[in-house]
Amino acid sequence: MNPQEVRRLLEQVRTGRLKTDQALARLRHLPFEDLGFAKIDHHRALRLGYPEVVFGQGKRPAQVSGIVRRMLGVRGSRTNILVTRADARVYAAVRRVAPRARFHPLSGSIAIRRNRAITGKGLILIVSAGTSDIPVAEEALVTAELMGNRVEAVYDVGVAGLHRLMEHRAKLAAARVAICVAGMEGALPSVVAGLVGVPVIAVPTSTGYGASLGGVAALLGMLNSCAANVAVVNIDNGFGAGCFASVINHL
Amino acid sequence: MNPQEVRRLLEQVRTGRLKTDQALARLRHLPFEDLGFAKIDHHRALRLGYPEVVFGQGKRPAQVSGIVRRMLGVRGSRTNILVTRADARVYAAVRRVAPRARFHPLSGSIAIRRNRAITGKGLILIVSAGTSDIPVAEEALVTAELMGNRVEAVYDVGVAGLHRLMEHRAKLAAARVAICVAGMEGALPSVVAGLVGVPVIAVPTSTGYGASLGGVAALLGMLNSCAANVAVVNIDNGFGAGCFASVINHL
Amino acid sequence: MNPQEVRRLLEQVRTGRLKTDQALARLRHLPFEDLGFAKIDHHRALRLGYPEVVFGQGKRPAQVSGIVRRMLGVRGSRTNILVTRADARVYAAVRRVAPRARFHPLSGSIAIRRNRAITGKGLILIVSAGTSDIPVAEEALVTAELMGNRVEAVYDVGVAGLHRLMEHRAKLAAARVAICVAGMEGALPSVVAGLVGVPVIAVPTSTGYGASLGGVAALLGMLNSCAANVAVVNIDNGFGAGCFASVINHL
Amino acid sequence: MNPQEVRRLLEQVRTGRLKTDQALARLRHLPFEDLGFAKIDHHRALRLGYPEVVFGQGKRPAQVSGIVRRMLGVRGSRTNILVTRADARVYAAVRRVAPRARFHPLSGSIAIRRNRAITGKGLILIVSAGTSDIPVAEEALVTAELMGNRVEAVYDVGVAGLHRLMEHRAKLAAARVAICVAGMEGALPSVVAGLVGVPVIAVPTSTGYGASLGGVAALLGMLNSCAANVAVVNIDNGFGAGCFASVINHL
Amino acid sequence: MNPQEVRRLLEQVRTGRLKTDQALARLRHLPFEDLGFAKIDHHRALRLGYPEVVFGQGKRPAQVSGIVRRMLGVRGSRTNILVTRADARVYAAVRRVAPRARFHPLSGSIAIRRNRAITGKGLILIVSAGTSDIPVAEEALVTAELMGNRVEAVYDVGVAGLHRLMEHRAKLAAARVAICVAGMEGALPSVVAGLVGVPVIAVPTSTGYGASLGGVAALLGMLNSCAANVAVVNIDNGFGAGCFASVINHL
Amino acid sequence: MNPQEVRRLLEQVRTGRLKTDQALARLRHLPFEDLGFAKIDHHRALRLGYPEVVFGQGKRPAQVSGIVRRMLGVRGSRTNILVTRADARVYAAVRRVAPRARFHPLSGSIAIRRNRAITGKGLILIVSAGTSDIPVAEEALVTAELMGNRVEAVYDVGVAGLHRLMEHRAKLAAARVAICVAGMEGALPSVVAGLVGVPVIAVPTSTGYGASLGGVAALLGMLNSCAANVAVVNIDNGFGAGCFASVINHL
Amino acid sequence: MNPQEVRRLLEQVRTGRLKTDQALARLRHLPFEDLGFAKIDHHRALRLGYPEVVFGQGKRPAQVSGIVRRMLGVRGSRTNILVTRADARVYAAVRRVAPRARFHPLSGSIAIRRNRAITGKGLILIVSAGTSDIPVAEEALVTAELMGNRVEAVYDVGVAGLHRLMEHRAKLAAARVAICVAGMEGALPSVVAGLVGVPVIAVPTSTGYGASLGGVAALLGMLNSCAANVAVVNIDNGFGAGCFASVINHL
Amino acid sequence: MNPQEVRRLLEQVRTGRLKTDQALARLRHLPFEDLGFAKIDHHRALRLGYPEVVFGQGKRPAQVSGIVRRMLGVRGSRTNILVTRADARVYAAVRRVAPRARFHPLSGSIAIRRNRAITGKGLILIVSAGTSDIPVAEEALVTAELMGNRVEAVYDVGVAGLHRLMEHRAKLAAARVAICVAGMEGALPSVVAGLVGVPVIAVPTSTGYGASLGGVAALLGMLNSCAANVAVVNIDNGFGAGCFASVINHL
Repeated sequence: MNPQEVRRLLEQVRTGRLKTDQALARLRHLPFEDLGFAKIDHHRALRLGYPEVVFGQGKRPAQVSGIVRRMLGVRGSRTNILVTRADARVYAAVRRVAPRARFHPLSGSIAIRRNRAITGKGLILIVSAGTSDIPVAEEALVTAELMGNRVEAVYDVGVAGLHRLMEHRAKLAAARVAICVAGMEGALPSVVAGLVGVPVIAVPTSTGYGASLGGVAALLGMLNSCAANVAVVNIDNGFGAGCFASVINHL
Repeated sequence: MNPQEVRRLLEQVRTGRLKTDQALARLRHLPFEDLGFAKIDHHRALRLGYPEVVFGQGKRPAQVSGIVRRMLGVRGSRTNILVTRADARVYAAVRRVAPRARFHPLSGSIAIRRNRAITGKGLILIVSAGTSDIPVAEEALVTAELMGNRVEAVYDVGVAGLHRLMEHRAKLAAARVAICVAGMEGALPSVVAGLVGVPVIAVPTSTGYGASLGGVAALLGMLNSCAANVAVVNIDNGFGAGCFASVINHL
Repeated sequence: MNPQEVRRLLEQVRTGRLKTDQALARLRHLPFEDLGFAKIDHHRALRLGYPEVVFGQGKRPAQVSGIVRRMLGVRGSRTNILVTRADARVYAAVRRVAPRARFHPLSGSIAIRRNRAITGKGLILIVSAGTSDIPVAEEALVTAELMGNRVEAVYDVGVAGLHRLMEHRAKLAAARVAICVAGMEGALPSVVAGLVGVPVIAVPTSTGYGASLGGVAALLGMLNSCAANVAVVNIDNGFGAGCFASVINHL
Repeated sequence: MNPQEVRRLLEQVRTGRLKTDQALARLRHLPFEDLGFAKIDHHRALRLGYPEVVFGQGKRPAQVSGIVRRMLGVRGSRTNILVTRADARVYAAVRRVAPRARFHPLSGSIAIRRNRAITGKGLILIVSAGTSDIPVAEEALVTAELMGNRVEAVYDVGVAGLHRLMEHRAKLAAARVAICVAGMEGALPSVVAGLVGVPVIAVPTSTGYGASLGGVAALLGMLNSCAANVAVVNIDNGFGAGCFASVINHL
Repeated sequence: MNPQEVRRLLEQVRTGRLKTDQALARLRHLPFEDLGFAKIDHHRALRLGYPEVVFGQGKRPAQVSGIVRRMLGVRGSRTNILVTRADARVYAAVRRVAPRARFHPLSGSIAIRRNRAITGKGLILIVSAGTSDIPVAEEALVTAELMGNRVEAVYDVGVAGLHRLMEHRAKLAAARVAICVAGMEGALPSVVAGLVGVPVIAVPTSTGYGASLGGVAALLGMLNSCAANVAVVNIDNGFGAGCFASVINHL
Repeated sequence: MNPQEVRRLLEQVRTGRLKTDQALARLRHLPFEDLGFAKIDHHRALRLGYPEVVFGQGKRPAQVSGIVRRMLGVRGSRTNILVTRADARVYAAVRRVAPRARFHPLSGSIAIRRNRAITGKGLILIVSAGTSDIPVAEEALVTAELMGNRVEAVYDVGVAGLHRLMEHRAKLAAARVAICVAGMEGALPSVVAGLVGVPVIAVPTSTGYGASLGGVAALLGMLNSCAANVAVVNIDNGFGAGCFASVINHL
Repeated sequence: MNPQEVRRLLEQVRTGRLKTDQALARLRHLPFEDLGFAKIDHHRALRLGYPEVVFGQGKRPAQVSGIVRRMLGVRGSRTNILVTRADARVYAAVRRVAPRARFHPLSGSIAIRRNRAITGKGLILIVSAGTSDIPVAEEALVTAELMGNRVEAVYDVGVAGLHRLMEHRAKLAAARVAICVAGMEGALPSVVAGLVGVPVIAVPTSTGYGASLGGVAALLGMLNSCAANVAVVNIDNGFGAGCFASVINHL
Repeated sequence: MNPQEVRRLLEQVRTGRLKTDQALARLRHLPFEDLGFAKIDHHRALRLGYPEVVFGQGKRPAQVSGIVRRMLGVRGSRTNILVTRADARVYAAVRRVAPRARFHPLSGSIAIRRNRAITGKGLILIVSAGTSDIPVAEEALVTAELMGNRVEAVYDVGVAGLHRLMEHRAKLAAARVAICVAGMEGALPSVVAGLVGVPVIAVPTSTGYGASLGGVAALLGMLNSCAANVAVVNIDNGFGAGCFASVINHL
């Protein structure tokens, strides 16, 4: 039952075709989302520029391209589309239905950009520690861009070579939100957070071996950050970091 | 806004004092629980005989007795009252406001029985492995009794002495629901579940030392039970097991 | 020594062919199961409608079809047969010996339905959170159906979009037992348990990555549920949840 | 060596009193912070309204009051002062040097408010699940208030009783940043994040027992949130959540 | 129903007072232990010399002395009695009912020796690594002695000072069973097992700090021993090691 | 320097060709094993009948067969040879150099029996819980047999179906040492240890999924056994259990 | 901006072409490394003889050979080059651009030796426990050699056969730094550290199964070493151990 | 049997009083340490200046002072004496027997300095992150000083405020060995190791709460350090770090 139906019901009450008690009974079982929640949700999606997202992992090429085709078919929609964790075969299938789709091979992200408006207020800066953290950083970058943000990335600035980080002091100073992507000891967010005055979103990665425990070491390090402007998302969750940064950047 | 208010709103629509659009707008912001959820919730509490529960841990005697006094003051209520994880000083305070309150010192449970009707359909049997598991078993027992069930308990029947368990075969056969309380290796539920055809609720306890890891060993053992009529609640959660058993026993 | 033999022994005592002491000595070494345990077990299987189960994981197609052929050959048996964790090649082999076998590809379950009687008393409702939880939900569904229950399923109702769950309020209200299947944060059972008055069986899944720790995060979340009508089975154990729900539903 | 000294050095070069090589040598060993970093840091503190913080845990009353007295003695400073994890005896000592100090006994926070300007742009809403989560929620609240934010709190709205959360829909809709404090299964942030379009900062608490593993269960649940506008801080870290929310709210 | 009752039943069958079918029915419900299991159990206790054991932890002095008094009162019994994890106050209470009780203060063991026969076939040698491992070693020693074994102990022979271990080569060569007690890295059993040809029972202790994780490091080390004549018991389980060694030594 | 060389050195002292001090200096640097340790070691190997063992995992067929050929070439040796964790290809290579080699495909063990003497004093009984535990049980069986023991095995006797275990009471009673192999909840050793009076060696297996944590659940269960005649070896360590049992059985 | 540029800036100040204030402003934003840090870094690289390192894992043959070709092209450089975790295909590609490259197949290391000077002051001795620890030991060996050290290795000297270790007492006595590589219980470093007076670097390996937890058992064992001249690096980190030993050996 | 006895034995051989065979037999059972191992050990202690150490934890004041009195009584010894983890009462007792004993209250270390020679070759620099890490840093400092090293300490230089660390660049450059003490995220060693060319010994501390897991987070962070000149000791092991640094500094 949608708002139109509620209006109709009220009309029936007004014109006496429906008794008060009957209307009351029907309203009681009104499905939840008709009362505006879905709307709020929808509203938010529009305002924040959430892309349509297809989690590609475990889906076959034809499945993904089918979903994308359906998304593209929604009349009037200009929402961006993001496919995560895809490979070259999935991309080949998607490109057949979306020739403008662009593939980011390191992260396996496919981006279909239909709306290039920059709606975020400032710069989102992505800083990553090692070469093997770049796929996660790239996923964050693509996600934040598709959500209407200006994004820049600084790669390969680990804490054991501070001078490399310091070269980018100007960019750090310019960022409105920072995302720090690091595996192994996960110390980068603390260092960066000490250099900037903005929110730092820490993304641990599963980079490493042995005592890195699949990213748990980096995760724990980040949760224990001695800097107070750091918050953490799940291991390898570039997508989540990109979203969270964008939500902040649209405030 | 409660149902009376919704009815009044509908009356205003019927009599023309409120426009359809105005009514629609107000309905949209209708608080959720007015639509019957709280009611369902209430209903269920009545039907299942949930006691009023005060989690005693960390509360001072005066706080607990204050809460109990307020519960007793609700006119017409005959709901039973359970205070968990209390000590003798809390009990002394509660007895001043509820002279009939009864203390179960092993589990630290205080029971105020105002409704002795047996509403559960069968017998709930509680089986525990070692002496140190009895406090948790007793908490389950008191909880299930206050929820209107017939409950019996068999203590000290560990798996390394099967003959002690076998002596109680008749009781096992009579139970409609079984609760198995065990620490250390947590093997009792599997053995019991192989002897009965009813649901077995497994409660791991923090009994043990070293590799018992505060009950985690028993918890893992129970989750890996090779019997298919076993489900598990949190470590030391006698209250939860008693509730779950009672909910089943009232079906 | 089976009951017939015990009877014969008693006859020999009665007729004096066997001395009391000799009989006593032989009874002492009576194998356990002759005393009715296996029988009770058998009885229970019949009453609860347990299907014959072949755990398919790690077995070759020919092995599985061989076991199934033997099961089908038991004269007079109408027990249903369930093969879990099978793939298309196993199914092909099974269909050769059981042409009516039906394959559920998401969960890899093969069902051979020889007895369609509904013996469970109410509806078992299966609720799952994400697309990747569906295989486990389906295993629970097929298991519960083969055990003689009416089962319905509601998929893709995660806690971050409550309105989708609320659309199914009517089904929730109709269930006698609920099974909640969820990975990641495993919050669904708590929310569902707050909306219904029946037992909720929580099944954590290994869905997720990073800090999901192969389903341990969801498992811990469910064990810590703040709702008292929740109990938990092992990660990905759709089969166990289906059995446990059926055992309750046959009470 | 501060900027004034660098300027003096440059003057000496200009006037020929210092050779280029000598100047170069001295610049090479220039302490880092002289180059403006400390300044940026200082700047940020002023702009964001960071309070002066004394971590009270493990400090004796006289130590804490001594530190506070020194802070109060800095001429011209109007920065707020926060003492965390203090008890009544520490508060007694602090009140002697700061008569206007206010004690928040649940969280053990002492607040000395010297600057009541509201510099944050919107409302920070703190939502907590159970009674035992309130200390952590209060620490977040006091922290965010001392940093110049308008803060409101909604307590005791667990996910197993959604209607209680729904009663506060208006406040949820009004928040610019939300902080969710929850122990046990830690499901609250996911549910709240599905209802609002703003950043949700999740704070796991060590509330619970057994499989809550001292808050690790809640922490894992929050890291695995299926909502993309959630980020997480350390267990019981109300202070960090308050800071992070304030940093966002000052963007 | 004990053997006497079974005999009586058989007599009734013989004399015709009981029908075969009636006897069969009653035999079917025969409690398990009547069939000899308890007896076997009893037998074994006698043969192996298991002492009567009171686990003292968490019991009040009066409780322990009460249990001991009852044990001493069993007519004709000469079984030894062991109270574990007791303190001086418990010992004072026990001595009042058992003047010959002897206290081992390091391990908190109380031994009441009523049977000094050596029934074990060889020497049990206990080897421990550090001073803080001695309490656990002593518990093993007292236990094995009370079970009728000749026991010797070699303390403070850690693997980082091999020469101290080598001084005791003669004793190592003389042992029929060895018990190795060690915390921290738990390497002692591997080294000892390489020097002897007999079973080595490894007991990890909770000695240590930090990464010893309460004895888990030592436990894991021992389970991974590269020597094939090592088996492991729970952390700090001196009692279990003493029993296991005695069982072997009585073969 | 071997004993012959020491003898020669002493001769040189006796005949005056070497000064006492020179001899002393050379003796000081005497390699350790020359002093009899290697001998003791060798002695033990002979007495206990340790087979020559090739750990096959990760070795190529040609490597394994090469090692075996060298072992077979030692003149006069009649020691048995065991290759663990081999596959059919390794077996094919080994059979070419050792035509009598026998392959046990479940455990991947290859046995070359050159000495069939039974030197162990009693029966080693291997009891395993589920079908998937058989490979580990078989490795223990082959190992113990090659070490000169009489071994029997009882498979598929889980604790949820006690009657199946009870059928084998006679064998249990006959064993001098028992090995219990079980995955999942690992409860079997406790139950068996309660039925026998001999040492029970518990072998956890990695059988299971989810909360079995690769065998850790079973391992913890066994370490926490409430029976005192149980000791534990590493997960899946059938070889170690077979050795340990044999060492006991040769006492 | 490098030192030359700073010098130029100072010259401009001296000659009046640049105002003091302008110079001050530009100096403030001076990139960090220009101030000598990179130099220190560079210096150290030269002095310690750090090789150029390519982490081969996850890189394709062409990528690795491309990087190596670029390294070789740096005019005048005689730094050694190390490729870690490569396979035969990577080696084939590298050999095409560096014909003198040498492959160490066990560890997958490729060494290109352009500078054979021994700059380390003493002997680095590498001791490893089992055959499967050799790859990690070899990685340490190759790394330390390429850094200009004299290195020797002693393999297969586990703690359960001390005599094998004792045979190498002379080498132990000759070492200036020792590296101990061991999986399973990780006891070797404690034993070695007790025999030598030099720093012992412990490298746990992921050798083992079950309770070795991928090397965590060995890691914990080493961290808990009772010897005070032991420090630990990450699991399987032969490269790190080689570097750390070389840094010490160059002091 | 000590070297004197060996000499006497050789004399007896030389003079014919002992036969070669007899001498051989007696030499075979020569206790290990007589052959020089203890001597080597002793030698090393002298050369490295190891202090005599009393681990104070769990010892009563009288016990500690008794041990110290005995140490002081060894004629001619000038070895330093260190008591770790003592409190003021222990110190009072020790001062009575050693009036010059000095107490370091933060770490609970008692130092009795009898030998003030500086035998280490360079400066050991101790760097710690937070106020609560100082006790562990102080234990390292006192230990290294008593072992004859020049030691300096820099406290409170966390990675979130790099400028504080940079102020001490001169000291960092002067150190021959560095010890980094840090809790929480444990990032300090990586940063310091990137600034210096010497060995960095990382000491994780149990500082922190929640996800610091008693220091495990810091430990894992340090083990995963991206710098190759870092090795790690146990959590809170200031003593071990001081020893290890001293051993390096004496090379």
